[in-house]
Amino acid sequence: MEASCTLGDTSIQRSIDLTDQQFKVTFQPSGRSVFVLHGTRMLEAAARAGLTIETPCGGAGVCGKCRVQITEGACEPTPAEQGVLTDAELADDWRLACQSCICSPTMAAIPASSIYASQTKIVTHAYDEAEADIEPSIRKIYVELTAPTLADPASDLSRLEEKVGPFKTDLKTVRRFNRRLRSEGYKGTAVLSDHCLIDFEKGDTTGQSYGVAMDIGTTTLAAVLLDLSSGEEVALASRMNPQVSFGDDVLSRIAHASDSAENLEELRDAIITATAEMIEELCREAGVSRENIYEITFAGNTAMEHLLCGFDVVQLGRVPFAPIHERGLLLSAGELGVAIHRNATAYVFPIIGGFVGGDAVAGMLATNLDESDGPVLMIDIGTNGEIVLSAGGELFAASTAAGPAFEGARISCGMRATRGAIEKVVFNGDVELSVIGDVEPIGLCGSALVDAAAGLLDSGLVTPEGRMLPPEELPSDLNGSLAARVRSRDGQVEFVLADAAKTPVAITQRDIRELQLATGAIRAGINILLKRANLTAGDLERVLIAGGFGSFIRRNHAQRIGLLPGEVEHKRLRYVGNTALSGARWALLSTRARKRAEKLAKRVKHVQLSEDATFQTEFSEAMIFPVGCGLSSGE
Amino acid sequence: MEASCTLGDTSIQRSIDLTDQQFKVTFQPSGRSVFVLHGTRMLEAAARAGLTIETPCGGAGVCGKCRVQITEGACEPTPAEQGVLTDAELADDWRLACQSCICSPTMAAIPASSIYASQTKIVTHAYDEAEADIEPSIRKIYVELTAPTLADPASDLSRLEEKVGPFKTDLKTVRRFNRRLRSEGYKGTAVLSDHCLIDFEKGDTTGQSYGVAMDIGTTTLAAVLLDLSSGEEVALASRMNPQVSFGDDVLSRIAHASDSAENLEELRDAIITATAEMIEELCREAGVSRENIYEITFAGNTAMEHLLCGFDVVQLGRVPFAPIHERGLLLSAGELGVAIHRNATAYVFPIIGGFVGGDAVAGMLATNLDESDGPVLMIDIGTNGEIVLSAGGELFAASTAAGPAFEGARISCGMRATRGAIEKVVFNGDVELSVIGDVEPIGLCGSALVDAAAGLLDSGLVTPEGRMLPPEELPSDLNGSLAARVRSRDGQVEFVLADAAKTPVAITQRDIRELQLATGAIRAGINILLKRANLTAGDLERVLIAGGFGSFIRRNHAQRIGLLPGEVEHKRLRYVGNTALSGARWALLSTRARKRAEKLAKRVKHVQLSEDATFQTEFSEAMIFPVGCGLSSGE
Repeated sequence: MEASCTLGDTSIQRSIDLTDQQFKVTFQPSGRSVFVLHGTRMLEAAARAGLTIETPCGGAGVCGKCRVQITEGACEPTPAEQGVLTDAELADDWRLACQSCICSPTMAAIPASSIYASQTKIVTHAYDEAEADIEPSIRKIYVELTAPTLADPASDLSRLEEKVGPFKTDLKTVRRFNRRLRSEGYKGTAVLSDHCLIDFEKGDTTGQSYGVAMDIGTTTLAAVLLDLSSGEEVALASRMNPQVSFGDDVLSRIAHASDSAENLEELRDAIITATAEMIEELCREAGVSRENIYEITFAGNTAMEHLLCGFDVVQLGRVPFAPIHERGLLLSAGELGVAIHRNATAYVFPIIGGFVGGDAVAGMLATNLDESDGPVLMIDIGTNGEIVLSAGGELFAASTAAGPAFEGARISCGMRATRGAIEKVVFNGDVELSVIGDVEPIGLCGSALVDAAAGLLDSGLVTPEGRMLPPEELPSDLNGSLAARVRSRDGQVEFVLADAAKTPVAITQRDIRELQLATGAIRAGINILLKRANLTAGDLERVLIAGGFGSFIRRNHAQRIGLLPGEVEHKRLRYVGNTALSGARWALLSTRARKRAEKLAKRVKHVQLSEDATFQTEFSEAMIFPVGCGLSSGE
Repeated sequence: MEASCTLGDTSIQRSIDLTDQQFKVTFQPSGRSVFVLHGTRMLEAAARAGLTIETPCGGAGVCGKCRVQITEGACEPTPAEQGVLTDAELADDWRLACQSCICSPTMAAIPASSIYASQTKIVTHAYDEAEADIEPSIRKIYVELTAPTLADPASDLSRLEEKVGPFKTDLKTVRRFNRRLRSEGYKGTAVLSDHCLIDFEKGDTTGQSYGVAMDIGTTTLAAVLLDLSSGEEVALASRMNPQVSFGDDVLSRIAHASDSAENLEELRDAIITATAEMIEELCREAGVSRENIYEITFAGNTAMEHLLCGFDVVQLGRVPFAPIHERGLLLSAGELGVAIHRNATAYVFPIIGGFVGGDAVAGMLATNLDESDGPVLMIDIGTNGEIVLSAGGELFAASTAAGPAFEGARISCGMRATRGAIEKVVFNGDVELSVIGDVEPIGLCGSALVDAAAGLLDSGLVTPEGRMLPPEELPSDLNGSLAARVRSRDGQVEFVLADAAKTPVAITQRDIRELQLATGAIRAGINILLKRANLTAGDLERVLIAGGFGSFIRRNHAQRIGLLPGEVEHKRLRYVGNTALSGARWALLSTRARKRAEKLAKRVKHVQLSEDATFQTEFSEAMIFPVGCGLSSGE
């Protein structure tokens, strides 16, 4: 069972109505934890935590590569596990992540051997930052200076510079430094941001150095509080982006903000207020003072970053969609309106173009996309699909307007992945449903739509062209239970998933058409990027599925409907989680990473799909579902 | 006749009660002008304007080197001029600066040949900045950018960076840039400070780029408004430092500010308010908007700079007098409280130590002190005497507490150089007095004290040990008019300068003692620095007399009383004017100069006189006046 499906970060469950069915799963050694519904497979739980586990057999439970050790919580071994693991291993609570299901609060240790090898970097940088890589722009240095004498009457500032190197500074900081130095007997902690002295604190406060990394998604905001000296995550917060009340998608918010300066301010205020509340929450959870947060990094799409900065977004809403900035912005957090340390800086990610934003750059950074040996494709499936291809030393990026179908919008019974949403559909003769919150279903969310479409295609109830067979055309050998779910209503064919007393939940012919549009747009984008690099999908060494929605779709079903290319082996499709947040973390912990982000943003070729002569052809071809090949059983 | 004698800048007359006797003298090609009293010699007027004219014959009117051409105003040729200049030259209004006196508003052209050769650099940098040297940190660049298209949808900021190079910026500036760029059809003027974009202005405003250089003296504030593109001075303002109401000298202000945070703020507020008023005055005079002033530089002594910054000065008032900063401070003008352009910077000069401040550094910068071939001494005579010696590639600096005698304080009839002050005393059998404002004298200022002391020594009325002969011991061959001026009153010998109805003005035995203390302190400082460099005064190639008081003393009289070493040829003693202001100007116009100032401040060896074992001996020896040699006639 699933807790959510369209939300950006796995931890978002915390802000969603929790039921008793949710269990916390903590993975060691990263310490990262997620809440999942009863019955969720360990592999999926780990993926949600951004931990990609090795599964050479595709999760069939035969290779034994995905072993994990349960250190808290019970888990009965499955027959597959009993076949692969020794009795001693089973007694030591070793299990297979692809088989084991979460039935209670669980703590599991993932050995290094189980982490997907070529992904180690991602994991390392995104979640287990090696100490060597931690070089934040914030440095805290405790100093004990000698008091001036007649023989050595050098100034206070030069005494400090002798210890910590030259720095710039500002008036208030010098005053504070002087006051504290003198009152504390020439001791204290210098706080340096890049090469600026931003504070001088009483005593040794080198242990209290924090930063916040934030993903400002269209739908979800996620923030982590990091200890800048160790790189450790000390708290995590997430919530809905309050801007959703001004429009579900980026374009409607751009339209709203373009109406008046007041509207723009309203949207900016919404995100700033939410940021402040999340920081408050992080501080409370970790017992950290806001004054000890010296830096914040933001990654978001172009419109989100513009709204955060209070930049006019009129130009993002009309041709040629030119943004105000591309390179990253290093701003005063105070000027931005974020009340942390009074001299804190805010780093806003560089962007690639009007619709390929800082989240995509952060994704490239977090996945080391440019450093892969073979061609790698990264896709963030959402209202705005962002696609980046790394091949032959080149980087290509495109955005494609998939529309909000995957978010549940424009689908007759569509809804967000909240309580009451069918989030998973399994075709096993009849259909089996998984509903968020284990309640009566009231609609279906994007992942279920993909499941259902894949099942309908496999069952022959929908043709590759996307036509739903009406009851009278159903194949004679069709399972009776499935056949009973097909009906015509108001002149439209539909497939009933649930026919409860209150509201029946069904998938209509029109829903299938919406899905074709969304899928076609993304596939067309993928295909055009591949053509640019003279590649076919089969050449791809890996396909990285990033971001919120992507993490919750079944890979095989996404391939079945043609959203992801079927030529790519199942095991080469990797969930990489919230890479926008990972990139933001990395940029917070390492100035080198920040420079790399700037370079990546500049290097990448922005492919404007609307300008591509073949887009329309690619689009209409991609709207045709692939002919079935029985792929869709399993995961 | 003189208009003032202790004030820092010659232009200070503007803020002093003007009388009909004052005439404006403008020098070309610098355009620099000063107001002087009727009868002032051209040489002196030029010196006050910071223009040092070649006088190999020491002003005797025989070498003809100091020729100037009068282009406005009449000036009858003197016999000396008739002897040196041809009739044609005289008809063309060529005159000798050492002979010609100002009798009306005058405009005079100084040919390059008349400018003292080794001083060209000073003059160039301080007042006639060659265009090649002008490279302020402020750059204004008018740009016409192409509008984005689908084929070229690059961001607004990257379009600008393509034209003006990479820059940092802040949130408000980006917003303003974007708004103006879009509303003005992709045209406008980028304002860059160092490598920061600080504004984007409508239209082509490259012609409106201004900065302010300011000398914050203990007694006087002087500020010039400069056109940053041409280096031209467009307005000049000066006034008394309002902090004088909290104490005449630095130490009393330090004491006041140390009493409470409110007192410190009161002193800071006084200087900030005065600065604002002066900027207002400069803007009004030049018709310039405050918003077009993008930078301000400040040079002052250590305490003045600390008070300007609102730094705690407690530590400047007690051993070991360690300052808070030595290196220059680059601050936000807004944070400092100076309301010019909202992103303007303020540069506060580097200092050398607790009592050798940014004014001395500015002086070294303005005079290129370190680049002279032979040994050069620079002296700023004031309450706090600052002395810098450049010799053999080394720089030595010291400060010496001369006390306020030269400012008229602690002298029985002493007063500042304002209306009613005797400013010049000529011994010509009897005494002749020059009084500021041509009114009845009510006291005497520092320059007159030096004149009188020199005259009394020459006349034998004061012994080298400083004893004033009482009436009964007067030499028998003494001129009767002088003898009549010597009297005993209240058990003390005094020499009466003026015996008018209201208040007699006299010099007392105690005044002579005060003068000995002041003179001794400065000479001891000079001697110790010379010893450090293994030099004697005779080795000095030049002695530069900087600052307010110095510009108004008669060099020979200063030598006669031992304030300046008598071994130095008269022509090697040079007035260099307000070098603090010159240095501040230079730092405003040239980033290279600013870097040089930082280097100079670091290079110079701060000699702590109080730490020198020989100081007491030197001091007591220097208090003895030199034995007379008839030097003190003529200027």
